[in-house]
Amino acid sequence: MSETQRAAIVRWRGASAEAVDDELAREEPLEIRVDGRAVSVTMRTPGHDEELAVGFLLSEGLIRGRSDVVDVAPVTQSAECNTVDVRLRPGLEVDFERLSRHVFASSSCGLCGKATIEAIRQSFPQISSDIRVAASSLAELPARLRGAQPTFARTGGLHAAGVFDVEGALVVAREDIGRHNAVDKALGWAVLAGADAFAAHVLLVSGRSSFEIMQKALAGRVPIVAAVSAPSSLAVQFAAESGQTLVGFLRGGGMNVYAGAQRIVFDSP
Amino acid sequence: MSETQRAAIVRWRGASAEAVDDELAREEPLEIRVDGRAVSVTMRTPGHDEELAVGFLLSEGLIRGRSDVVDVAPVTQSAECNTVDVRLRPGLEVDFERLSRHVFASSSCGLCGKATIEAIRQSFPQISSDIRVAASSLAELPARLRGAQPTFARTGGLHAAGVFDVEGALVVAREDIGRHNAVDKALGWAVLAGADAFAAHVLLVSGRSSFEIMQKALAGRVPIVAAVSAPSSLAVQFAAESGQTLVGFLRGGGMNVYAGAQRIVFDSP
Repeated sequence: MSETQRAAIVRWRGASAEAVDDELAREEPLEIRVDGRAVSVTMRTPGHDEELAVGFLLSEGLIRGRSDVVDVAPVTQSAECNTVDVRLRPGLEVDFERLSRHVFASSSCGLCGKATIEAIRQSFPQISSDIRVAASSLAELPARLRGAQPTFARTGGLHAAGVFDVEGALVVAREDIGRHNAVDKALGWAVLAGADAFAAHVLLVSGRSSFEIMQKALAGRVPIVAAVSAPSSLAVQFAAESGQTLVGFLRGGGMNVYAGAQRIVFDSP
Repeated sequence: MSETQRAAIVRWRGASAEAVDDELAREEPLEIRVDGRAVSVTMRTPGHDEELAVGFLLSEGLIRGRSDVVDVAPVTQSAECNTVDVRLRPGLEVDFERLSRHVFASSSCGLCGKATIEAIRQSFPQISSDIRVAASSLAELPARLRGAQPTFARTGGLHAAGVFDVEGALVVAREDIGRHNAVDKALGWAVLAGADAFAAHVLLVSGRSSFEIMQKALAGRVPIVAAVSAPSSLAVQFAAESGQTLVGFLRGGGMNVYAGAQRIVFDSP
């Protein structure tokens, strides 16, 4: 399915209005199932749905790697329905209640938000990687990610997540109307390709970094997260407590480092 | 509570790295309760929490106006917990299951995503307002919204939602790390100020417009939604089906009109 959709619109540029054809970033619901049981409906851009489903389950702590996944496939339904089913390794204990707590923030958790965040953090080990990356190398990544964003160029409507090695080579890039979905797709790609693929890598996201992005990166064991725009206070706090490196405002040949600066070599380009 | 938080960071601009003080957009969880029952935890920027809670309940269709709300107040807990409780009019029937379906996309709904969207659309009447607004007036709104964004100017980290009348006068502007929260805060302000406040108004959001934004605008009865950046395919489809006007790429003195163009007067400035 295409990531875009044509639309007839009216364009106004001050002088006159004209009817033109435009291209929209596609947004459609995807239902994610685990062994036939629906666990989430997310609005996403079609494409790489299997990766999205697997990355989502990794982010939520339900799976830890490739060996937990037997199979992932679209469920054939009407053309109006997008559904992906992930079959898990028999015997894998799945805490659906916990999934509900994280995703749905249900009334049954009995925890306030801060306690929930702490529980999430502690359910994944801290990052202790001693990889290092040159600041001058990081500074080149946004241009490389944009080069791998064909749909954004046409619609202006998609976020992107890219994973690079410490030499700055692009490993995988994914686009989505939701930044969190783009990250899940990249993480899911790694899971399906084999475990621990990102333990010595840099995750770059377009736009801002939030708690949710850092939580997903932690689940994916990514030691360095960089964003083109600003981080939130909670993203910075979570990064510091999790041993993650967090870079923001990575643009215009500069950056701010908010946590884990020991992994950045501040060279002169 | 402040909308920002100080942080010690490392800034690198190619030549050298220096330790500087920076200001972050604050992100913290807020638990929303209805008559003491937790219904949602959302990551938001502190401030206007009562409006956020009430706007959220309006968006979800649980309340229809001011008369459904008896009281809204923070629940006193530890300093680590942010909780707001909304007390509803006694006798008001609240379908908590339905709330779960919309917000949590739970496994019990038995609907695929498209059916869920259709159900949401049909639970609010179509917009049939015959207000009209001049394109040249719309073109001036983004600058006015930016002028009402004090925190963005300092952090670069906040989205904004502003409501304007058809003459272009700003009625209310709210900031948040989440665009959907900024919209909920603006809608909640209107509810608390009295019903139907936005039935002849324009909602302007920073960034992109998605299905979720259009759904909230429909719940708030706002006939015209404008965004500084691109809409998604589902935002356009939902707007057309709901009788909403949807404007995108409202910047640089121009705009694209994706739905409901009859409400725009394409004048020459």
